[in-house]
Amino acid sequence: MPGTRFEKDGLVIDTTIPHLGPAKIPSPLVYCHHTNDTGVPLYLDSEFIEELAGESTALNFEAAGPRRNLYFDPSKAKCAIVTCGGLCPGINDVIRAIVMEARHAYDVPAVLGIRYGLEGFIPKYRHDVVELTPDVVSDIHQFGGTILGSSRGPQSPEEIVDALERMNISALFMIGGDGTLKAASNIVQEVMRRNLKISVIGVPKTIDNDINFISQSFGFETAVYKATEAIQCAHTEAIGAMNGIGLVKLMGRESGFIAAHATLSLKEVNFVLIPEAPFTLHGEGGLLPTLERRLRARAHAVIVVAEGAGQNLLADTGKKDASGNPILGDIAQLLRAEIKAYCDERGLPHTLKYIDPSYIIRSVPANANDRVYCGFLGQHAVHAAMAGRTGMVVAKLMDRYVHLPLELVTLRRRKLNIRSDYWRAVLESTGQAELAGMVPGLDE
Amino acid sequence: MPGTRFEKDGLVIDTTIPHLGPAKIPSPLVYCHHTNDTGVPLYLDSEFIEELAGESTALNFEAAGPRRNLYFDPSKAKCAIVTCGGLCPGINDVIRAIVMEARHAYDVPAVLGIRYGLEGFIPKYRHDVVELTPDVVSDIHQFGGTILGSSRGPQSPEEIVDALERMNISALFMIGGDGTLKAASNIVQEVMRRNLKISVIGVPKTIDNDINFISQSFGFETAVYKATEAIQCAHTEAIGAMNGIGLVKLMGRESGFIAAHATLSLKEVNFVLIPEAPFTLHGEGGLLPTLERRLRARAHAVIVVAEGAGQNLLADTGKKDASGNPILGDIAQLLRAEIKAYCDERGLPHTLKYIDPSYIIRSVPANANDRVYCGFLGQHAVHAAMAGRTGMVVAKLMDRYVHLPLELVTLRRRKLNIRSDYWRAVLESTGQAELAGMVPGLDE
Amino acid sequence: MPGTRFEKDGLVIDTTIPHLGPAKIPSPLVYCHHTNDTGVPLYLDSEFIEELAGESTALNFEAAGPRRNLYFDPSKAKCAIVTCGGLCPGINDVIRAIVMEARHAYDVPAVLGIRYGLEGFIPKYRHDVVELTPDVVSDIHQFGGTILGSSRGPQSPEEIVDALERMNISALFMIGGDGTLKAASNIVQEVMRRNLKISVIGVPKTIDNDINFISQSFGFETAVYKATEAIQCAHTEAIGAMNGIGLVKLMGRESGFIAAHATLSLKEVNFVLIPEAPFTLHGEGGLLPTLERRLRARAHAVIVVAEGAGQNLLADTGKKDASGNPILGDIAQLLRAEIKAYCDERGLPHTLKYIDPSYIIRSVPANANDRVYCGFLGQHAVHAAMAGRTGMVVAKLMDRYVHLPLELVTLRRRKLNIRSDYWRAVLESTGQAELAGMVPGLDE
Amino acid sequence: MPGTRFEKDGLVIDTTIPHLGPAKIPSPLVYCHHTNDTGVPLYLDSEFIEELAGESTALNFEAAGPRRNLYFDPSKAKCAIVTCGGLCPGINDVIRAIVMEARHAYDVPAVLGIRYGLEGFIPKYRHDVVELTPDVVSDIHQFGGTILGSSRGPQSPEEIVDALERMNISALFMIGGDGTLKAASNIVQEVMRRNLKISVIGVPKTIDNDINFISQSFGFETAVYKATEAIQCAHTEAIGAMNGIGLVKLMGRESGFIAAHATLSLKEVNFVLIPEAPFTLHGEGGLLPTLERRLRARAHAVIVVAEGAGQNLLADTGKKDASGNPILGDIAQLLRAEIKAYCDERGLPHTLKYIDPSYIIRSVPANANDRVYCGFLGQHAVHAAMAGRTGMVVAKLMDRYVHLPLELVTLRRRKLNIRSDYWRAVLESTGQAELAGMVPGLDE
Repeated sequence: MPGTRFEKDGLVIDTTIPHLGPAKIPSPLVYCHHTNDTGVPLYLDSEFIEELAGESTALNFEAAGPRRNLYFDPSKAKCAIVTCGGLCPGINDVIRAIVMEARHAYDVPAVLGIRYGLEGFIPKYRHDVVELTPDVVSDIHQFGGTILGSSRGPQSPEEIVDALERMNISALFMIGGDGTLKAASNIVQEVMRRNLKISVIGVPKTIDNDINFISQSFGFETAVYKATEAIQCAHTEAIGAMNGIGLVKLMGRESGFIAAHATLSLKEVNFVLIPEAPFTLHGEGGLLPTLERRLRARAHAVIVVAEGAGQNLLADTGKKDASGNPILGDIAQLLRAEIKAYCDERGLPHTLKYIDPSYIIRSVPANANDRVYCGFLGQHAVHAAMAGRTGMVVAKLMDRYVHLPLELVTLRRRKLNIRSDYWRAVLESTGQAELAGMVPGLDE
Repeated sequence: MPGTRFEKDGLVIDTTIPHLGPAKIPSPLVYCHHTNDTGVPLYLDSEFIEELAGESTALNFEAAGPRRNLYFDPSKAKCAIVTCGGLCPGINDVIRAIVMEARHAYDVPAVLGIRYGLEGFIPKYRHDVVELTPDVVSDIHQFGGTILGSSRGPQSPEEIVDALERMNISALFMIGGDGTLKAASNIVQEVMRRNLKISVIGVPKTIDNDINFISQSFGFETAVYKATEAIQCAHTEAIGAMNGIGLVKLMGRESGFIAAHATLSLKEVNFVLIPEAPFTLHGEGGLLPTLERRLRARAHAVIVVAEGAGQNLLADTGKKDASGNPILGDIAQLLRAEIKAYCDERGLPHTLKYIDPSYIIRSVPANANDRVYCGFLGQHAVHAAMAGRTGMVVAKLMDRYVHLPLELVTLRRRKLNIRSDYWRAVLESTGQAELAGMVPGLDE
Repeated sequence: MPGTRFEKDGLVIDTTIPHLGPAKIPSPLVYCHHTNDTGVPLYLDSEFIEELAGESTALNFEAAGPRRNLYFDPSKAKCAIVTCGGLCPGINDVIRAIVMEARHAYDVPAVLGIRYGLEGFIPKYRHDVVELTPDVVSDIHQFGGTILGSSRGPQSPEEIVDALERMNISALFMIGGDGTLKAASNIVQEVMRRNLKISVIGVPKTIDNDINFISQSFGFETAVYKATEAIQCAHTEAIGAMNGIGLVKLMGRESGFIAAHATLSLKEVNFVLIPEAPFTLHGEGGLLPTLERRLRARAHAVIVVAEGAGQNLLADTGKKDASGNPILGDIAQLLRAEIKAYCDERGLPHTLKYIDPSYIIRSVPANANDRVYCGFLGQHAVHAAMAGRTGMVVAKLMDRYVHLPLELVTLRRRKLNIRSDYWRAVLESTGQAELAGMVPGLDE
Repeated sequence: MPGTRFEKDGLVIDTTIPHLGPAKIPSPLVYCHHTNDTGVPLYLDSEFIEELAGESTALNFEAAGPRRNLYFDPSKAKCAIVTCGGLCPGINDVIRAIVMEARHAYDVPAVLGIRYGLEGFIPKYRHDVVELTPDVVSDIHQFGGTILGSSRGPQSPEEIVDALERMNISALFMIGGDGTLKAASNIVQEVMRRNLKISVIGVPKTIDNDINFISQSFGFETAVYKATEAIQCAHTEAIGAMNGIGLVKLMGRESGFIAAHATLSLKEVNFVLIPEAPFTLHGEGGLLPTLERRLRARAHAVIVVAEGAGQNLLADTGKKDASGNPILGDIAQLLRAEIKAYCDERGLPHTLKYIDPSYIIRSVPANANDRVYCGFLGQHAVHAAMAGRTGMVVAKLMDRYVHLPLELVTLRRRKLNIRSDYWRAVLESTGQAELAGMVPGLDE
């Protein structure tokens, strides 16, 4: 039986997936070795559950995949897809895979596209609904972004479920990040409260790669590749001037995965600053004197900063954006100002070139591997919905496609473990270990 | 304790890694959370061990990573690197990572590069040995291929160990495929026979992605991406002529991974032919009548064929190449001839464009993700050698870097499981399920 | 008045463009500075007219561009587009530009797409005609190939003009190479014979860049870029083996422009063999001994060969392909065999990797610059047709868009001048000047 | 005899190139058809000389290319290269070509690289001089930027010539923009004043493509390609949100060539704003109401703005940068603020994504075509210097490589002619003709 309950230090993890009801309809899928329900046992370690601290524990997960028997009769089902939050490579691939699997494999008669995120459910915005046929979606994976459009911020779960009822939706696929998956939970609650039979399946999207239990979100690889292109340019600019400094701001509100991975990939970065490893500007181990030493020795430097890094150095604005995320202080502007002041004070002539490639990274089409990944996420989402699952997301966990409860993935944000060998490799690549704060409690 | 012995149906799997001796030298690695030796437990299923047939079993593996104590004194150690067999994206990245880790992190005084594969050890070839310094390797990841050169075929283990003795090598890193890893085993035997203290560490390289226990070999992603470019061109050519047929031959002697993955990524392929799913040409379910139906319905078709597919349709030459692999019959030429004959006979005008992108795929630089992967493989290889391991490879298994015994990875070739959901997705993408041989024993 | 008559040594060049009749309809083009008819004087030299031998002469050409008054009433006109011959980057861009200019700028009510080349006019092939609306073509420039499909070989001018009459076409746009432009001439003759008012405008397409008076055909730049990618791979393979030889066959039946330009761009080529510079295999200045010296000195070599090079070394088959071009002997296979025999005889171990990237080069989308170029060619073709020109092509000549008579561009094939500074730069880049036949009559 | 003197309306153009003295040393160039000195006659029109207003006039230019006899004895010559101003794709290609031509073709014993622009001549900056050997430069074309480094701003011509004398330089190659070419003029004056025999040859570099008489500067094509990538991303972001606006700022201080060319290439731009076509924000024909109509009709818009556009809408700061160029007001920030205020006032919800790809565009390696172009520029610069020319630049003019006097190219900035067919094509592509200021004096 899939589903494990794990408790430690007050943390409760339950991998059981909610079902809408018994699966009695034979699946129309041909040439198919159906997935059984014995579950996928996996040993998890502190990468996933920090509280495990060096140990590992076996948990059982529900396998993703097509079932022999379904809850819904696909020939009478109706699906809807909505895409929320910022762009990320691969969204169109997921949309395409859902539509193709529902229409071609299950013969679902209709898949609707909700325009501009959750707004699309709310009458006052007057957005159209589009019908997503195989013809409509067949080439969309060649383009970045989302053909449905997106928006940020919550909408009333009641109004959303009203819309689902009006449109007679059997399964809603929500492609979005942490906020969207929390909204999905609320929709599931409202669906249950009304005793409706609507499946709500999430596909986790995060350019920051910071969703709990998701080692690598779709589009991450593509994003890293585009990030390395920008860093390469920063490096070229840096060596093109005496004491040239290339500064690149990358995504990463609470987690520095893109910045770290791009650093490992490109090998030209001298300082990578991420939220998980707070740094200081001045004094021993401070960024500025370390940068000065670097410039005096090598005459150029490349700095990559995640947008959420160094927030301790900035005044908290207390403001939040439409998605409910705190509005971050602008660390890149702070660095530009501090570097200029520091160098001017010391008579160190320098040239700083600043690159913010955010929208260029977010909006490109997925690369070959992300395309395959997105294809499976979309297909598995449809399998799960047809089999009557709800309140869950599809995910790849240790190379296995599984179902994860919404509660589990929204429990907290995933962060880069700066006690890991991964981070050590980053520090080796940049040579920035002398910065204070980079290596907490070495093997203490 | 790492190391599990698993037996089933005569199959014996032992994950224990040979050690050269006790690790007593404190590691010079700074800012490092050292890897402990409790091992990494992983649940394996029939993807890895076919005999498990739907079940899974927990095996314990030795974790890759830096150790607190070493067997070798790095300041007195000497390393050598050799690259063997065909090109594959990422070889230079692995070389670079080994050199950087050995020289910069461990302060190993010298890393030698052996030229042109195992030939480089044999005096009669008179190849130079090159010293690989950080300066020499710092930019090599930007280029495809191997800066060391390569060659195919075995050389005498005795002569190789003679050379290792002459050069006073402590650790030999062998980057190569199945044949190379078997050669590595022989070298380990010879080293033991002479009671030498030389570590032999493999880094598995295979453009076919067919090494046992290695879900995804380095360079595979990059290769798939380049393969999709060629298939896209075949598609463009196919639609550019009445009854246009684009035929692409891809790598895959015994396993169709690149062909299948590229098919999933691109979504323009109508027939993908791989060694694991034997097909027929004529009669019901035959490729040719199915192709004819496709042409009459849509006026174009794209066929991707792995080089090892359809060998049952070709006379066995009985010949072997320098690496000891059977010389395959040329399935692409057979298909070209058979398609022409079949169409001409039926008065079906057509245009076939044939693309063989093999060397274009093998020789490109690694993409961003493969670069990171290769970096870790190289670093972990050095960690393992310094800690006194031998007779092993470094590998990523279910998202965990581990040590695998040479015997395990050379036990047999990894193949694409055509009973898997993965293959089902391929069939859905191409629509080729009507071909005979594509779906064995549906859920029998 | 545009139009010059130039005569020398029996060569007659007349740049006068045929008109269907007086232009009396005011152009609907808004925001437009109309092109006057005084013509574009250009000094031509021996690059264009070999007979000029070091001198130059001023010729007058008709300028391309929108006219104030038109021959056709656009609101009653009907256009047709046909694409013929092999693929070339940018065809879809030209189609798109013609459709957009005709429909949006001139308000022409209909543009028809003829499928599969000239076959599309002939009833027995039963190909559909498609209506090309702005919606249909708006994204096609993102894809390589031709959305109309193509075919090779001539069709009866009478049947073609029958079809034009049946469809009531005012202007036919023919995108194709030398054979197509000759077919266009025949269609113009037939149109005149019947005293019809149909404009026939060519857009010269040639992957070989060998059309007379066209310095750089559309798609050439893109093709060169893709060719350099293949050569780079050949170089990587070559250095990856002892005495590695990378051999790349490129397009170029009678002219070596792609081979030469890619050589200049990449700088890794050691031998580039083109039709214009016949070479020998054996003896002093022969390719094989020169290659041997190169291998013995540097242990690798990259050879680029245009498909039409070295035909003197091959038996003339006397056969012709569907387009009427002689079927060339396979120089690449000859080189492979000769190199193997030569090296084997001398006990020179070597590894040859052969790459034929032809279809990969032909089928990619146009690059940014070619897109702009194709856009202007398409627009100018429409301007010319609406103004009543016929029997001409649009072309860029010394950076000026002009009209050229069909007779002029089909007079003979353009060839690379091996007495030019351009070829000298190629020889410097490769270092192959010691080959016999590379430098004719040095300044004699 | 090359060299024409042309006068009109007070404008004087003299194409005569200064010579250091008679050319008496036979050239060592082998396999070479030498360039004669009869000159290249070209018909120029108002694209080059605005005063010609629709007419054209024949001018004679000195041909670039190798001469049979040289002024310098190459075996005793010494060259120096300096790169100045901002980055541009292809600088390393020009450096490489100069070094290869000087060292390999002419056997010049030494080529020095001056570091960090003109600063490198001035003792107080203490920058090293590097020797540029063929080995040093053989791979540099694969990287963007300049291996020599650069800086902005003038330095004393006296000190520069002092340095040239100290280093015993025969020929100085200056790769830079308008300011650098003016500095070159001053150096030539100082050299003459001291009666030295030092050739000063410029290679015009401008990312803005705004140098007089240079239709297309090196790197321009590459820059346009990268610009289209950024605009594509802006388009994806724009359609990804309700009333999404993608705003891209491109280079172009006084000339909108990159913005216009990228617009023609990509075809997704709705508004392109360039310095040559002043626009208004409010009222009839104003950008804001036109943008509002576009949003209400299509729900998204893409705006490309050259950095020098709309300066009339900004307060003149009066400040200048290190290169002496006026510091421009920030038009992109003004647009962001004005669009926000305008939409907020009208209750038009919208999302604006701003992309500034400047450094990403400037720092990439040159594409295949630019590489060939840069190669010829570098080679011709060496030919010119060895033949004793000075005070000139090498340039491609109407597809012909020629020598141009420094005075001619620095006479004024080249601008996009908004009365041209080129600009009409831009307006057609964007559909922005309804903006006031786009089409001056239609054919009046």
